Amino acid sequence: MAAEENKRLSTEPYKGVRDFYPEEQAFLTYFFTTCRRVLERAGYVEYGASILEPAELYRAKGAENEEIVSEQTYTFTDRGGREVTLRPEMTPTVARMVAAKRREMGYPLRLFSLPNVFRYERPQRGRLREHFQLNVDLFGSDSPHADAEIIGIAYGIMKALGATDSQFQIHIGSRKSLDEFAKRKGFSEKAYKDFLALLDRAKKMSNEEFEGQLNECGVDASDFRHSPPEEIKKMISEFADAGIRNLIWDIGIVRGFAYYTGMVFEVFDTHSANNRSLFGGGRYDNLTKLFDTEPLPGVGFGMGDVTLRDFLETHGLLPKYRPATDLYIAIPSEGLALSAQTFAGELRERGVNVAVDFGEKKLAEQIKTAAKHQIPYLIVLGEDELASGRVRLRDLASGEERELVREEVAGALGKSPA
Amino acid sequence: MAAEENKRLSTEPYKGVRDFYPEEQAFLTYFFTTCRRVLERAGYVEYGASILEPAELYRAKGAENEEIVSEQTYTFTDRGGREVTLRPEMTPTVARMVAAKRREMGYPLRLFSLPNVFRYERPQRGRLREHFQLNVDLFGSDSPHADAEIIGIAYGIMKALGATDSQFQIHIGSRKSLDEFAKRKGFSEKAYKDFLALLDRAKKMSNEEFEGQLNECGVDASDFRHSPPEEIKKMISEFADAGIRNLIWDIGIVRGFAYYTGMVFEVFDTHSANNRSLFGGGRYDNLTKLFDTEPLPGVGFGMGDVTLRDFLETHGLLPKYRPATDLYIAIPSEGLALSAQTFAGELRERGVNVAVDFGEKKLAEQIKTAAKHQIPYLIVLGEDELASGRVRLRDLASGEERELVREEVAGALGKSPA
Repeated sequence: MAAEENKRLSTEPYKGVRDFYPEEQAFLTYFFTTCRRVLERAGYVEYGASILEPAELYRAKGAENEEIVSEQTYTFTDRGGREVTLRPEMTPTVARMVAAKRREMGYPLRLFSLPNVFRYERPQRGRLREHFQLNVDLFGSDSPHADAEIIGIAYGIMKALGATDSQFQIHIGSRKSLDEFAKRKGFSEKAYKDFLALLDRAKKMSNEEFEGQLNECGVDASDFRHSPPEEIKKMISEFADAGIRNLIWDIGIVRGFAYYTGMVFEVFDTHSANNRSLFGGGRYDNLTKLFDTEPLPGVGFGMGDVTLRDFLETHGLLPKYRPATDLYIAIPSEGLALSAQTFAGELRERGVNVAVDFGEKKLAEQIKTAAKHQIPYLIVLGEDELASGRVRLRDLASGEERELVREEVAGALGKSPA
Repeated sequence: MAAEENKRLSTEPYKGVRDFYPEEQAFLTYFFTTCRRVLERAGYVEYGASILEPAELYRAKGAENEEIVSEQTYTFTDRGGREVTLRPEMTPTVARMVAAKRREMGYPLRLFSLPNVFRYERPQRGRLREHFQLNVDLFGSDSPHADAEIIGIAYGIMKALGATDSQFQIHIGSRKSLDEFAKRKGFSEKAYKDFLALLDRAKKMSNEEFEGQLNECGVDASDFRHSPPEEIKKMISEFADAGIRNLIWDIGIVRGFAYYTGMVFEVFDTHSANNRSLFGGGRYDNLTKLFDTEPLPGVGFGMGDVTLRDFLETHGLLPKYRPATDLYIAIPSEGLALSAQTFAGELRERGVNVAVDFGEKKLAEQIKTAAKHQIPYLIVLGEDELASGRVRLRDLASGEERELVREEVAGALGKSPA
């Protein structure tokens, strides 16, 4: 027996990943459904891909990413000798897919996906190794209206998740402005990289600290704080005309990824306890250049489930869990199981989601089961109820009961009356 | 330049996995949505988990599975020295999750999930290395009504996908009957295993071949073809009472997995070109025994997306692709982009999914884009349309046009009129 016990396996998931019990899964479903609704409304279509990609897809992007592949991704050699990576982000995948069917696709091409992505985070940092990330891309347009559309969608998703304009701010920068500034200053490639890295860190510094470090880069603060390029000024004013006033110009927005080339943006939480960048994106000149020579402009963003959940929690916007099940039918004895199934069948045809007990445990236990599952309503179906055709619909949260004719139950639950 | 060209990456996905372009993704969405609707109606709730699991989860099940882990799964060592496996099936994961929260869960516990699962198939077999698999489980009941509910759900999903009763057949067997038969025959463990393997192969043999091999196992065909146990006979008759007559008793149904202990079933395609098992499931005594000592009965099934798609294709039941986008707005010049966005905004508020062109290409090209995306309707919004408030709604499939007041468009597309 002791030896047996020792063999029991741990019920823990693999380190750094999550189990999605119904409540956690319901949040994911809510997040996905909300994103889908906003995106489909704006003419975007969903795509997907395997989490397995050839490792070269990430290696190819240059030195910066080589480091990422070798140290921060799950990369292994399969039994056929192929190096394979669990995708750390979706962008190289969508670039690959678009390049593969370049001629068949029509442009502008609006795509979105809701993939899980993997990072081999060092355990001590306590960060997740897998998360979900909405990816939105608009390919084949240089128009500033495309930039505005993408920002409008990011805004629209925040609103659809229940955020008010005062709870978040959209900071808009310009990689092109930064490139021009660097050129004017005559930065070397190395100096420019250091400068961008400093900007990326700036929001975590005091003003003085930042200006000191700017000086070290050979930049005077007054010289740097310049005004937005014309197209961004115009975009911000068009949003304001439409009543959206939480967009601001912020030359300090960089975005780490090498592929951004134009407008870049980040959405910040304005809450004092959680004042940080939630997600962002921007314009890229040519994402498909690894695959073919003809340029293809684009603009897009990514949004992770973990950060968004934190935001919603901070602002009291997490929806309360309610299972998909509307009603539980309990029965005083096993002999009534078939009758319960028949009644459930009638209700299901009218659109009610019904779970049925098989009567193997006492009634009190059955009611506890319904409560554990957080099912809102309960009916006990006994011999009397079957004979009379009348049932009591119990609201499990309040304990209130209503007596109804069996045919009235679906209607009372807000479904088709008959 | 030549050197540049040589560096172009392949656009192929990793071997044995699929890219889901919008049409393929739309099928997955259809499959998932249909499964969810049927399952939620019956009181099931969705859960999820990471694709990464500790390798020991699969090793622990015994010799049969050790082979699977070492030869047929993606298993690798992470940088922390942990052996990790990309889940080849969902059952060990759900068993782990249920065992972890055993006391908090109420029973019967109805769960489903729509995970992707991975098998390292040898390349020459041309089989997929990743597919999606609906997993349905009902834990904590010994009732034959639980068995019937699970079979009813499998049936319900087939119907919801458009199959008629004559297109599929549900074969029901009993592992318990087979166990009893083996006991009666005094089979050794090895002999019983060979016997089950023979039954599993039987549907691919001629009757004579099968009977010959049965004899080699020391079994006479007449001795073997026996009648169903009482509870299965009753279940088949209850389904017949409800008008469902495509359930048949089939002692030859085995199911490969070691964990089945009671009723087992497989759904067969009845089409002559595709006459094979589509999916199946059954009753298991104690899936959580790897994690704790208290038994927990259950019954469930799994259903893969690839096999189901084949079935639907064979029977002409694949839904025609239609993008989520209802309408495309084309514009004769870039200057009209903002007006197009405004009109799109009005329509979106009324529930229409609208994509807008930015006017960077000629009108004919813009209309081609809409057609490439298979968007059903088009409006060209020019100066005249803006001035008059009247637009032409073009059905892109038929070419037919209707002239409408701008406010009538949403209603004409079957959405909220105002």
